[in-house]
Amino acid sequence: MAGKDLKDLLIHQLKDTYYAENAILKALPKLAEAAKADELKGAFGLHVPETQKHVEHLKQVFKLVGERAEGTEFPAIEGIISEGEEAMQEFGGSSALAAALIGSAQAVEHYEIVRYGTMLAWAKQLGLGEVEALLNETLVEEENTDEILSELAEDSINAQAA
Amino acid sequence: MAGKDLKDLLIHQLKDTYYAENAILKALPKLAEAAKADELKGAFGLHVPETQKHVEHLKQVFKLVGERAEGTEFPAIEGIISEGEEAMQEFGGSSALAAALIGSAQAVEHYEIVRYGTMLAWAKQLGLGEVEALLNETLVEEENTDEILSELAEDSINAQAA
Repeated sequence: MAGKDLKDLLIHQLKDTYYAENAILKALPKLAEAAKADELKGAFGLHVPETQKHVEHLKQVFKLVGERAEGTEFPAIEGIISEGEEAMQEFGGSSALAAALIGSAQAVEHYEIVRYGTMLAWAKQLGLGEVEALLNETLVEEENTDEILSELAEDSINAQAA
Repeated sequence: MAGKDLKDLLIHQLKDTYYAENAILKALPKLAEAAKADELKGAFGLHVPETQKHVEHLKQVFKLVGERAEGTEFPAIEGIISEGEEAMQEFGGSSALAAALIGSAQAVEHYEIVRYGTMLAWAKQLGLGEVEALLNETLVEEENTDEILSELAEDSINAQAA
């Protein structure tokens, strides 16, 4: 234990995030299916190939740090996704469904944003330039998705739900 | 179901967040105890009275929307906290412990940031000015805590862990 260092922590977090991205990839089609609003359906649909790219980025990062790409089951993302599914059920058929879906999707995005942000700082500290660049590219896209969802909510979805 | 609207969604989320804040209040002393670095111990310690204030804000918000203050057990925050506890065990005694603790605490902060951000947008849409003000005050403090933790990590903790 005492011999563990920041690189071990980065690998620990990579496995968490790899698991999370794959869990999100499974959850996205359900979100897209539940979304009635075309714009929201589109936003969720668009995030599928992006998430696939993020998984590829992680595979490259695993290679760069000399580790096999593998996920470890972590409870946080499962909890966040299951809360989303629960809200989908509770607000299904109501005017607030789309707002609930956006809220759930943004909780997922923020989980990714914080994880990538932390890993990015660790990669920087470790002088892993290529890893840093890959993680940063993903982080920027996650932040962008979060921004798109906020705009969608504030421009139309929340008003329709009120 | 079909009759549910944005106010119901806000109440749903308030119960989630009330549960989360109380869970965080229980977890913070454990984080502070595990933190060896004085600055980090201080940051966690400082967040206890802030979190108590956030719980009070939520109680006021419940009153403003005419609901009894109560939490509903939600799995997301439990998952995020238990990942933190797991990292604490895995990296306990290692040079990377403080970095792991900061990473876990920032995951908690971001969960709160996204929930408060979403609720704030909903309160705004519903024209609930006082609710909006209370949620915003908490949100600003959570963002501030997140910023302090990032600076601490980048200024000293990550370098000590590398």
